[in-house]
Amino acid sequence: MNKIEISPKEGLLTLPGFPVILVCIGNNILTVAAFSFFSFDPPMVMIGIVPNRYSFSLMKERKSKDFSVNIPSRNQLKHVKFCGSKSGRTVNKFKETGLTPQKATQITSSLIKECPVSLECEVVHTIQLENTTHVWFVGKIVKAHKREDYDRMQPMLYWPQEYRKIGEVIKE
Amino acid sequence: MNKIEISPKEGLLTLPGFPVILVCIGNNILTVAAFSFFSFDPPMVMIGIVPNRYSFSLMKERKSKDFSVNIPSRNQLKHVKFCGSKSGRTVNKFKETGLTPQKATQITSSLIKECPVSLECEVVHTIQLENTTHVWFVGKIVKAHKREDYDRMQPMLYWPQEYRKIGEVIKE
Repeated sequence: MNKIEISPKEGLLTLPGFPVILVCIGNNILTVAAFSFFSFDPPMVMIGIVPNRYSFSLMKERKSKDFSVNIPSRNQLKHVKFCGSKSGRTVNKFKETGLTPQKATQITSSLIKECPVSLECEVVHTIQLENTTHVWFVGKIVKAHKREDYDRMQPMLYWPQEYRKIGEVIKE
Repeated sequence: MNKIEISPKEGLLTLPGFPVILVCIGNNILTVAAFSFFSFDPPMVMIGIVPNRYSFSLMKERKSKDFSVNIPSRNQLKHVKFCGSKSGRTVNKFKETGLTPQKATQITSSLIKECPVSLECEVVHTIQLENTTHVWFVGKIVKAHKREDYDRMQPMLYWPQEYRKIGEVIKE
């Protein structure tokens, strides 16, 4: 079957989904699907934030440029949706969700106690291109925490308008 | 349950997987899981390449800085593995896999005819941080092509050592 031409925007929407995470900047929680690894060694990840968001101004204002990556499990979807739809400008998301802020060891941003994985990240680089929608913060993982019963099926994928399960390993 | 401390590298390995794609730079095919969207508007994606790879020198040498993103479907896993394990320095991967190079309309790199989605991308920015493992190329999608029967369950995720299926949409 031949392919048909679609718009660049529709092209972007064909992508199957990226891991969705909860990020803390200071004591605010944001839902992030603009998330990727950046480097294996040293281990680094990156998160993309839209500049008109509260989280962006928080990052800019804070003396310590750091964030935590918290991988939610599927049963935390309601918190993921809540934190993705409300602004920290008007809502204390820890309080509203009942999630528990946990003190990190190497960074000043909180960790989320109930998430099965938390990564402490120090911002080492910012990527901000003119006339694009996201600013990307590259963070070096300086400390990591995992529940012993965590498995990589628990998280979720997100891509516009839908959350998906992670599928099983493909065996051959 | 409390979390235990793990190393930053182990922290990176907890991530559930990212969409795995086939990229063409010129007429060479490479398998890429270091792949993310970058901006909604204009639509942009980014790919990460390890600098000692043939693909990296290809990108550097070519006059036209562009690449195509080709989303493979699950039944193309053997091509994904082959293109991820061989170097274009020594192997013509189109020839060896039997995949068909297709002329793009806006870029000089080939598209892969058999993949259900192909995105033509022009490199607009390069991110190269000292002492990291990947160089990232940000590409603006300038043209996109999709098979009409494509659906977002067809692609695969990859994260070190395993390929996974995309799971179903989570309904509430």
